[in-house]
Amino acid sequence: MSGAVEVAQTTAELAARTRRFVRDVVVPAEPPAGSALDPATRLDLQRRAREAGVFAPHVPVELGGLGLPLADWSPVFQEAGYSPIGPAVLNCMAPDEGNMLLLERIATPEQRERYLAPLAAGDVRSCFAMTEPHPGAGSDPGALATLAHRIDGGWLLEGEKRFISGADEAAFAIVMARTPELGDDAATMLLVPMDAAGVEIGHAIRTLETAITGGHPHVRFSRVRVADEDVLGTPGQAFRHAQARLGPARLTHCMRWLGLARRAQDTALDRVRTRELFGSPLGDLGIAQGLLADSEIDIATSAAVVDWAARTLTDDARAGATASSVAKVHVSEAVGRVIDRAVQLCGGDGVTLELPLLAFLNEVRPFRVYDGSSETHRWAIARRAVARRRAEVGAGEAVLDRAEGAR
Amino acid sequence: MSGAVEVAQTTAELAARTRRFVRDVVVPAEPPAGSALDPATRLDLQRRAREAGVFAPHVPVELGGLGLPLADWSPVFQEAGYSPIGPAVLNCMAPDEGNMLLLERIATPEQRERYLAPLAAGDVRSCFAMTEPHPGAGSDPGALATLAHRIDGGWLLEGEKRFISGADEAAFAIVMARTPELGDDAATMLLVPMDAAGVEIGHAIRTLETAITGGHPHVRFSRVRVADEDVLGTPGQAFRHAQARLGPARLTHCMRWLGLARRAQDTALDRVRTRELFGSPLGDLGIAQGLLADSEIDIATSAAVVDWAARTLTDDARAGATASSVAKVHVSEAVGRVIDRAVQLCGGDGVTLELPLLAFLNEVRPFRVYDGSSETHRWAIARRAVARRRAEVGAGEAVLDRAEGAR
Amino acid sequence: MSGAVEVAQTTAELAARTRRFVRDVVVPAEPPAGSALDPATRLDLQRRAREAGVFAPHVPVELGGLGLPLADWSPVFQEAGYSPIGPAVLNCMAPDEGNMLLLERIATPEQRERYLAPLAAGDVRSCFAMTEPHPGAGSDPGALATLAHRIDGGWLLEGEKRFISGADEAAFAIVMARTPELGDDAATMLLVPMDAAGVEIGHAIRTLETAITGGHPHVRFSRVRVADEDVLGTPGQAFRHAQARLGPARLTHCMRWLGLARRAQDTALDRVRTRELFGSPLGDLGIAQGLLADSEIDIATSAAVVDWAARTLTDDARAGATASSVAKVHVSEAVGRVIDRAVQLCGGDGVTLELPLLAFLNEVRPFRVYDGSSETHRWAIARRAVARRRAEVGAGEAVLDRAEGAR
Amino acid sequence: MSGAVEVAQTTAELAARTRRFVRDVVVPAEPPAGSALDPATRLDLQRRAREAGVFAPHVPVELGGLGLPLADWSPVFQEAGYSPIGPAVLNCMAPDEGNMLLLERIATPEQRERYLAPLAAGDVRSCFAMTEPHPGAGSDPGALATLAHRIDGGWLLEGEKRFISGADEAAFAIVMARTPELGDDAATMLLVPMDAAGVEIGHAIRTLETAITGGHPHVRFSRVRVADEDVLGTPGQAFRHAQARLGPARLTHCMRWLGLARRAQDTALDRVRTRELFGSPLGDLGIAQGLLADSEIDIATSAAVVDWAARTLTDDARAGATASSVAKVHVSEAVGRVIDRAVQLCGGDGVTLELPLLAFLNEVRPFRVYDGSSETHRWAIARRAVARRRAEVGAGEAVLDRAEGAR
Repeated sequence: MSGAVEVAQTTAELAARTRRFVRDVVVPAEPPAGSALDPATRLDLQRRAREAGVFAPHVPVELGGLGLPLADWSPVFQEAGYSPIGPAVLNCMAPDEGNMLLLERIATPEQRERYLAPLAAGDVRSCFAMTEPHPGAGSDPGALATLAHRIDGGWLLEGEKRFISGADEAAFAIVMARTPELGDDAATMLLVPMDAAGVEIGHAIRTLETAITGGHPHVRFSRVRVADEDVLGTPGQAFRHAQARLGPARLTHCMRWLGLARRAQDTALDRVRTRELFGSPLGDLGIAQGLLADSEIDIATSAAVVDWAARTLTDDARAGATASSVAKVHVSEAVGRVIDRAVQLCGGDGVTLELPLLAFLNEVRPFRVYDGSSETHRWAIARRAVARRRAEVGAGEAVLDRAEGAR
Repeated sequence: MSGAVEVAQTTAELAARTRRFVRDVVVPAEPPAGSALDPATRLDLQRRAREAGVFAPHVPVELGGLGLPLADWSPVFQEAGYSPIGPAVLNCMAPDEGNMLLLERIATPEQRERYLAPLAAGDVRSCFAMTEPHPGAGSDPGALATLAHRIDGGWLLEGEKRFISGADEAAFAIVMARTPELGDDAATMLLVPMDAAGVEIGHAIRTLETAITGGHPHVRFSRVRVADEDVLGTPGQAFRHAQARLGPARLTHCMRWLGLARRAQDTALDRVRTRELFGSPLGDLGIAQGLLADSEIDIATSAAVVDWAARTLTDDARAGATASSVAKVHVSEAVGRVIDRAVQLCGGDGVTLELPLLAFLNEVRPFRVYDGSSETHRWAIARRAVARRRAEVGAGEAVLDRAEGAR
Repeated sequence: MSGAVEVAQTTAELAARTRRFVRDVVVPAEPPAGSALDPATRLDLQRRAREAGVFAPHVPVELGGLGLPLADWSPVFQEAGYSPIGPAVLNCMAPDEGNMLLLERIATPEQRERYLAPLAAGDVRSCFAMTEPHPGAGSDPGALATLAHRIDGGWLLEGEKRFISGADEAAFAIVMARTPELGDDAATMLLVPMDAAGVEIGHAIRTLETAITGGHPHVRFSRVRVADEDVLGTPGQAFRHAQARLGPARLTHCMRWLGLARRAQDTALDRVRTRELFGSPLGDLGIAQGLLADSEIDIATSAAVVDWAARTLTDDARAGATASSVAKVHVSEAVGRVIDRAVQLCGGDGVTLELPLLAFLNEVRPFRVYDGSSETHRWAIARRAVARRRAEVGAGEAVLDRAEGAR
Repeated sequence: MSGAVEVAQTTAELAARTRRFVRDVVVPAEPPAGSALDPATRLDLQRRAREAGVFAPHVPVELGGLGLPLADWSPVFQEAGYSPIGPAVLNCMAPDEGNMLLLERIATPEQRERYLAPLAAGDVRSCFAMTEPHPGAGSDPGALATLAHRIDGGWLLEGEKRFISGADEAAFAIVMARTPELGDDAATMLLVPMDAAGVEIGHAIRTLETAITGGHPHVRFSRVRVADEDVLGTPGQAFRHAQARLGPARLTHCMRWLGLARRAQDTALDRVRTRELFGSPLGDLGIAQGLLADSEIDIATSAAVVDWAARTLTDDARAGATASSVAKVHVSEAVGRVIDRAVQLCGGDGVTLELPLLAFLNEVRPFRVYDGSSETHRWAIARRAVARRRAEVGAGEAVLDRAEGAR
């Protein structure tokens, strides 16, 4: 049992240390609301995070991280996410963090050294090139249109990607490409340096987000040659690998944005504690109390469901996929509600950039769409529920919907 | 670590055993929708539960129960609650279950033998007499109007209670009474046999619930003599004892009704699996899928937040009180939504008593009021959040709501 | 313009008169919460309604009614619905009211005399036999399974109907039957006295509603002979006629239940005006104020959308069908929310039958299912919106969803 | 009756003409999503609007407008609002439009000529200076801190205002100032040219809105001399005048933003008509249909409640104030929901600036705060409901919350 206790202590201590670092060092260094962190400040803050012993909590110790297991990430990532730039400073922001997890699991020793090590150290950044312009891979990843054809010693990559977060600052991309020579529905992951011949950054998609730096542009791959040693994981298994990346990646977004929701709630609490309306502190007015309580409930249920999903994902990948869908829908909607209520409670300061809340609201809005929209997840959750029940009845459970008049 | 593993196995096994017993034995024995379980059938089913090794899971082993710790009750109580009569059959229904917990914690050895032992064994039932007609103890327990005055060797009890669930079938009541001789705000718990002189059952409050049998009548205590040995717990500490009872009692309601919500969801799943509309299975229609998914999310977040609250309550009574408030509001509202969606998905059968769903809906509706209404809990949750934040700022955290123009 | 003014005055006066009659005469005569109005009391109250000049507001003057046009029904029906028995007393309750409208529009002079006249006078009751046991006509009316085959001088009717509200007390039924001799999808409406040979009342579906008296049983038609003069409307046009009945019938349900929602809100207002909690009137507490305000908003938007739908239905039957769908979904859900909030605000009295609110909640719950479920209407509303927009773009409107990067 | 018919035709015709102008001329001229309309383009488009006969629909004919009465504004303003720049082009945007209404009602002939005429013609712009930095006039207008002291022939104005929309481009301000010489709570409206000595624009509040051009800065009035002829309305009656401005101003915001919500819904409809997912048009998928239908319902109930409030406001100022509160809360929340659903249905294009939807979402978000926050209005609505019911009971209505057990 001592191992578990040690981890628990480590996690609680690390969360506390992260909390202090983020609140004392990171929050005061935030750029104005709605602006992105510039790379120089990022590097400086990352150096201070290393010194404070809070850098890269999720990265294995041998790669310079703190070695926290997935089931323990949540409290630490929530503390990181208390600042919109906190995860970048701690090097646990998307898409790099998900790419690290994927590389850690399936990279060869050489890929590990060449791609993962500098990424984990914060020396370079990366991107994940899956989404494509319509009618390619979007809500339905199966529509993947980018192709890689077999050539001598490797693959010739051709296609256009879209909404490739971080591409402007990335050293390399993990590219999903259909590889028809490996089977009709086969796709393969390829590691592609962004300065390789034939890689071109296209139309810049403007957003109101700033936490993921490096833009969200189109990226064009024109006859890019990829050597066999840059194939990531098993050829033809890109979709399986992508799923293995997505489950945790969804949850870490939940953890980080939940931290931002706590920040918004604390901001609202500071406002209602001190601001008076009609002669009473705003926080004593019931309509404000209703909003505050609903946010406390949203935060608590979000934290609880993320913990459950992280435990489930650790124990059982398949059950974990459903659990992470459930958590993703709930948390992505809950954090939006929490920040929206904080905006409302802060009135004129809330609906302008006098406070960062409106920027936070725009920061989290896209999470209801990326990593699977709420609608796609709801569809998947319902289908799995129907299948689960079908199996139970198949295994002998009594059918429950027999109407009295039909008996 | 072996102790924890053993408990986990025991809990999982017990949950599985309870599941089989409830589905195979209890569900087929349910009375028609909207009707209460009759005492004879109850006793028979309790005997079968004992034989199946699933009776009284929460009761200490020495009293004939299964000795499950509070943090492990949830999966078992959820299985019990899959039938509206399941908790009564397993002797873990309110108000008896909460009374057992309270007696287990604060009863004297004699009280334990006289009151707790037969209650735990299912030989008798009990009630908890706190609520009073307006303007007495209701939403505000502090308005307690029932009085007990000091007499030689005991107390003389006088007052009227209301909404005393189970009173019609109870052998004894735990009565909350103001005891002014012990202090201005002092109240004391008294154990009162229902056949004591001066105890009279009054106006029967009609309800549409049936899971708690024994009615919800007014009970009048007229000059009832209570001996000192029937004082429960520390004299003058009734409110503190009541709080200690209420935290877990709220959570066990959550657990049981969550089981009933799972039953409703399974009923809806059985309906949509097999029923067609416009040529497609109902379960393939997106608007149905949206309802099903929302219910899956409500169930998962409810289970997760109850687990969190039960762990918190085990570790820290004060934090546990807030956690159980949060869980109570979320779960009481979520189970209502889940059952309501199932009603909707079952159409005409849903909105009549052809299926039991409409009865389930009426079964859980009052839970948003009893054990503290959603509004009262929201008020308390908001106040504690404000206090928590005030303490943080007092301890040095930076105030967050400084507007840009005010800096 | 004088005509319009006169109607407006008449309507406002009639609404005021109905208000006084319902509040002074009908409300005090209501049976206990959850019980149905007995026929004798009904007849007596109907007599008093006639004397008060408020009976049958929607019925043409020549048939003994007050001749109000459809666009003016809402304020009067809302006043009637302030009591759950009010519409029955005023003879404007479902299903009779919808049947009167239908007969008024398409009955022959003989049918008018034989069926409509006594119905409008309150001398007899009626039912509308469309819904069938699965897999017949339910959510999808097109699945109609009851058959009428051509015989000499009429039709031979065979089939089983279900959920036939009012059948136990009805003198006649309007039966929807498939008539294959008139075309593959042809259905015909038949007027069938309930005492005709071959009509049999079957399984009684138990409900928690009481406002529609006469039960909701199955009705079996076994080789029932229907003469040609009892064909209602155009043979083969039953679906069209049913639609013409359903549009207004949905709206009148909205009007009546909106009246009941106002009653619930007034009950809650009476409670919060006078009841104190923690030393303040409940109505001064913000969380209560939030509930009250949300109900005011639900009531006002419901009344406004019903008015709009009634005007639209008067002007344009096709646009009116969509408008009545929109109104039906909004109002059926809004009245449920309003009553639910009133239940909550009345606490223990709300969740029991100490007040009639819980009975009101059960009264309106089925309205989200009958007359087209919320889900079916949402499906239809969305389809019509897509079709509307397709037509606009077809007529030259610019397509709006062109992404910047796609231009 | 011919007058009414004529107005109705005029209104329908004007709405149709405005529709064509906005869709054919204004929409194609919109700046990129998230950017403001530049003044030169504005003037050019205003010229074209004049030529098209759609300029200034709400302005009296003698001032160059189209003379539409308030009860008929809604369809026309909705068409204007279909483009975020439409109302500015038609010169019916806030704050100018509200200022025109106010001047039209209470300005002297000289003020009319000097201030209203050029404003109505679109030659100048204006602002309304009421809101102040905390703890001055904000959610509670009664906290007004700006002072005007009596001097010879006029007033000496001193104070700081905040969130003064349009101030950067305004020719004059209508300033609310406390005038203690006229009474303890007396405030007076003053017309102040922005180039008057002592007027200074301060801190610019950054926003994510662009529809109201001219910024939202602080404005400082330092010893500004205001002559008696620039007092607007009755001295000391500023609050009453402000209320008279605010009722309609709230409603016109509702109308304009409702137009923008229709635009968002049409954008979503265009997307789901043509985009496929899993082999079906998105618009045939039920979860999308549910979102679309909910938006249709939100739009229809919003339009209906605005019509009702505009009619009520025309008939009865006092009832109109409550009605406009109800409409404001419902519509401000409904338009947010509609646009949010459109964002969701447009996926990646929705949550970026590839489409203007995300900008629309930020455009309407502040409306839940300005012109009275949802919370303030809910508080006021609840209080008026309680007062209404108190008056009814006082006038003899029976109290409704008598519990059965209490009778």
